[in-house]
Amino acid sequence: MSKEITSRQEDYSQWYNDLVIKGGLADYSAVRGCMVIKPYGFALWERMQDEVDRMFKETGHENAYFPLFIPKSFFAREAAHVEGFAKECAVVTHYRLMNDPQGSGIIVDPEAQLEEELIVRPTSETIIWNTYKTWIQSYRDLPLLINQWANVVRWEMRTRLFLRTAEFLWQEGHTAHATAEEAMAETIQMLNVYADFAENYMALPVIRGVKTESERFAGAIDTYCIEALMQDGKALQSGTSHFLGQNFARAFDVKFSDKNNQLDYVWATSWGVSTRLIGALVMAHSDDDGLVLPPRIAPIQVVIVPIYKGNEKKDLLEAKGEALAKELRQAGIRVKFDKSDNARPGWKFAEYEMKGVPVRIAMGPRDLENKTVELARRDNKEKKTISTDGLCATISSLLEEIHQALYNKALTYRDQHITRADSWEEFEKLLDEKGGFISAHWDGTAQTEEAIKEKTKATIRCIPLDNPKEEGKCILTGKPSKERVLFARAY
Amino acid sequence: MSKEITSRQEDYSQWYNDLVIKGGLADYSAVRGCMVIKPYGFALWERMQDEVDRMFKETGHENAYFPLFIPKSFFAREAAHVEGFAKECAVVTHYRLMNDPQGSGIIVDPEAQLEEELIVRPTSETIIWNTYKTWIQSYRDLPLLINQWANVVRWEMRTRLFLRTAEFLWQEGHTAHATAEEAMAETIQMLNVYADFAENYMALPVIRGVKTESERFAGAIDTYCIEALMQDGKALQSGTSHFLGQNFARAFDVKFSDKNNQLDYVWATSWGVSTRLIGALVMAHSDDDGLVLPPRIAPIQVVIVPIYKGNEKKDLLEAKGEALAKELRQAGIRVKFDKSDNARPGWKFAEYEMKGVPVRIAMGPRDLENKTVELARRDNKEKKTISTDGLCATISSLLEEIHQALYNKALTYRDQHITRADSWEEFEKLLDEKGGFISAHWDGTAQTEEAIKEKTKATIRCIPLDNPKEEGKCILTGKPSKERVLFARAY
Repeated sequence: MSKEITSRQEDYSQWYNDLVIKGGLADYSAVRGCMVIKPYGFALWERMQDEVDRMFKETGHENAYFPLFIPKSFFAREAAHVEGFAKECAVVTHYRLMNDPQGSGIIVDPEAQLEEELIVRPTSETIIWNTYKTWIQSYRDLPLLINQWANVVRWEMRTRLFLRTAEFLWQEGHTAHATAEEAMAETIQMLNVYADFAENYMALPVIRGVKTESERFAGAIDTYCIEALMQDGKALQSGTSHFLGQNFARAFDVKFSDKNNQLDYVWATSWGVSTRLIGALVMAHSDDDGLVLPPRIAPIQVVIVPIYKGNEKKDLLEAKGEALAKELRQAGIRVKFDKSDNARPGWKFAEYEMKGVPVRIAMGPRDLENKTVELARRDNKEKKTISTDGLCATISSLLEEIHQALYNKALTYRDQHITRADSWEEFEKLLDEKGGFISAHWDGTAQTEEAIKEKTKATIRCIPLDNPKEEGKCILTGKPSKERVLFARAY
Repeated sequence: MSKEITSRQEDYSQWYNDLVIKGGLADYSAVRGCMVIKPYGFALWERMQDEVDRMFKETGHENAYFPLFIPKSFFAREAAHVEGFAKECAVVTHYRLMNDPQGSGIIVDPEAQLEEELIVRPTSETIIWNTYKTWIQSYRDLPLLINQWANVVRWEMRTRLFLRTAEFLWQEGHTAHATAEEAMAETIQMLNVYADFAENYMALPVIRGVKTESERFAGAIDTYCIEALMQDGKALQSGTSHFLGQNFARAFDVKFSDKNNQLDYVWATSWGVSTRLIGALVMAHSDDDGLVLPPRIAPIQVVIVPIYKGNEKKDLLEAKGEALAKELRQAGIRVKFDKSDNARPGWKFAEYEMKGVPVRIAMGPRDLENKTVELARRDNKEKKTISTDGLCATISSLLEEIHQALYNKALTYRDQHITRADSWEEFEKLLDEKGGFISAHWDGTAQTEEAIKEKTKATIRCIPLDNPKEEGKCILTGKPSKERVLFARAY
């Protein structure tokens, strides 16, 4: 009856793709590495955007919009930045098509070549800091707290729906400050906003930490991140917040005069989350029957399905269903009343299970007599028949209960999968047999980090904030270490 | 005291640019033809998006997202479509940069050439209909009612902030239907949604009509439009809704089986409005002192400015201002309390006038005693002192009054600028001396339309819906005509 989904056990990666496609979130497109976000997936993204955008505005940020294209020369001004992004850039070289005079059809007009190539933005630091140069003169112009919702392009060779696509949607905050302290406080504030959103809306527990030098954003002094754990034991970086120091201000010559009329370069941060979060959501909570969406961002929180036997009491059931839906809607609950008669209830049940709708209400003729409905939870599949009296309050608290249950389940799993390793053998064994985060000593060098990555595909996900100091020896080299770091294989 | 604005009389075009830039709506960028939408301009766009998006959803549409890039071969499939857009396409040809081995810096890696060039979407019919092919099999899959919010690129040679930029933001609706009648009904429904939005939110009266063949969207059977009139007598196309017939379904082979299991091509519509609307808004209502924003979409509807004399009653004034702002906010009014002390009240007055905030409330020490405030309207500059009792209700109805006043003023101007011309001399004289829409007979041929355009720069803006039939003679050729059409010079 339901669409076939590969089980997690059988093929985790295929299970993920099945969910994304059959759950109606996204589809492959004809353009290499680009995806189509389908209406249900986009509704989920809109719910996420709504909450994140509100949080940004509550912390004093405003939205703006900067050009899609970045002149190649801008891109090249910050050395580490261009080094990090040059290998995956979509480049616009021409601005016109024409009919081939040889008759081969439509071709690029060779006469319409740009003087300077334009890069389709992979991130917007350079074009934005070039603009900030004209907006910032004095300390009175600071701080500048701006966010942009946009599409960006990174020409990835191996792509996965939502997790890694050539084009993706994201937000990028770009702020400018008078002091290093202020910029650092902003960096941490936005990291906390992301963690708050992940935990309280996506029901996704995250570890806050700082990246090692080799995992830093190209052009940053420090990159902070939230890291989540997926059900296959792999980590997923879910958001980053960068302290950029004065690097971009130097590259674009953005200075301000302080209260004493002294000129100094401006301090910067940037931070972003993307449609990748949808991939995290899918992999963190879903099961072999389909998606499991956390109630606070589910596009549909409750679906009502009437159960007719023939046409018995069909009109009454429809009227009751409409009334119920209206009542729930007025209580601020996102509800769908599915009275369509082109599918049987059993098919609808499977469909909404697949789509991860947190609560299903079913009503048959007998429920009308008894003033009851059947309530089914998507997360644990529990069903019970309850009275329609006070249904709104029941549903509201049930939705909260489901959010908490999803969070707790993910937290328990995550905490059971942070394991200490004190030898190389232990480290390799844990990676292969258990997965998850492995807390281990490392000698602090990029060479060792790279060697571990080559041997095991595990990377240092982060050094957790407030990491306890602890003397130890690097698992690979045996050299001295002052703290453990978190390793994992990652998406 | 205020920033200098060129007057309309002196230089209408410069007046417009001054308003956009000094009003904080947008800025030029370093990328040819692309603009930066500044926070205040973007907040205005967000208000517009909110309302339009709600209207789309209320008429059954869902949002989705399709790739930024379109393979060149897709683009070429619909002959009229490629003909219309080929001359203004940004073309991606490469996907990697590298360090020049000759040492000239960062260059495009010649080895990283795409097999097939990608066009940055100027509009998305082709990539969307290529996707619809996999989504539509049966009449049960129809109608498909999808909208996309996106950036698009058209390589325009002469650009103007908001009115015509190489990159702009817009929404594009793309719907699929089982019958021509249904698709036509959708086309007209969306035209009416646009007209409703323009009139009831932007306070902008519009004429609904259909385009002549030569002004049609490339690939459409019929293009419907809303046309508005600016203060300089030039028309501005503010939204279009296209009946695409089966053109794109044919080009992408999208067929469905109907209830009798017969295969037929799917019927299509597309429709869009863009950030151009912001240009229309600026030019329709503003004056020589700055922007005049219609209350229903103004990011700030009311600004409260406290007036200190020295520090006299500063704390009391601030407390009262905060309380007032809170009260108004709770009544759903978008209010800003500007207590910043780095600018004098007079400077603030000029600044909010420049920004077009509909209502200003000023409060001084004497107002505290008298329980009054000074209320100033941006549109007609009227000021009065009123009691703070019942202020919320007063402001709410004042905002409605301002909306209506702006609409009525624009409507009166527009109606006074629809003039009949019955000879060529009259036509030319009206165009040069009065401007506005000129209602005149035309022989119905594209040649005559083109000839009139060449001679006068005036184009046929539209044939109004429900245009009365009237026998007459073409103003240029004297050939018989069955109805008048509306000519104008246009943006």
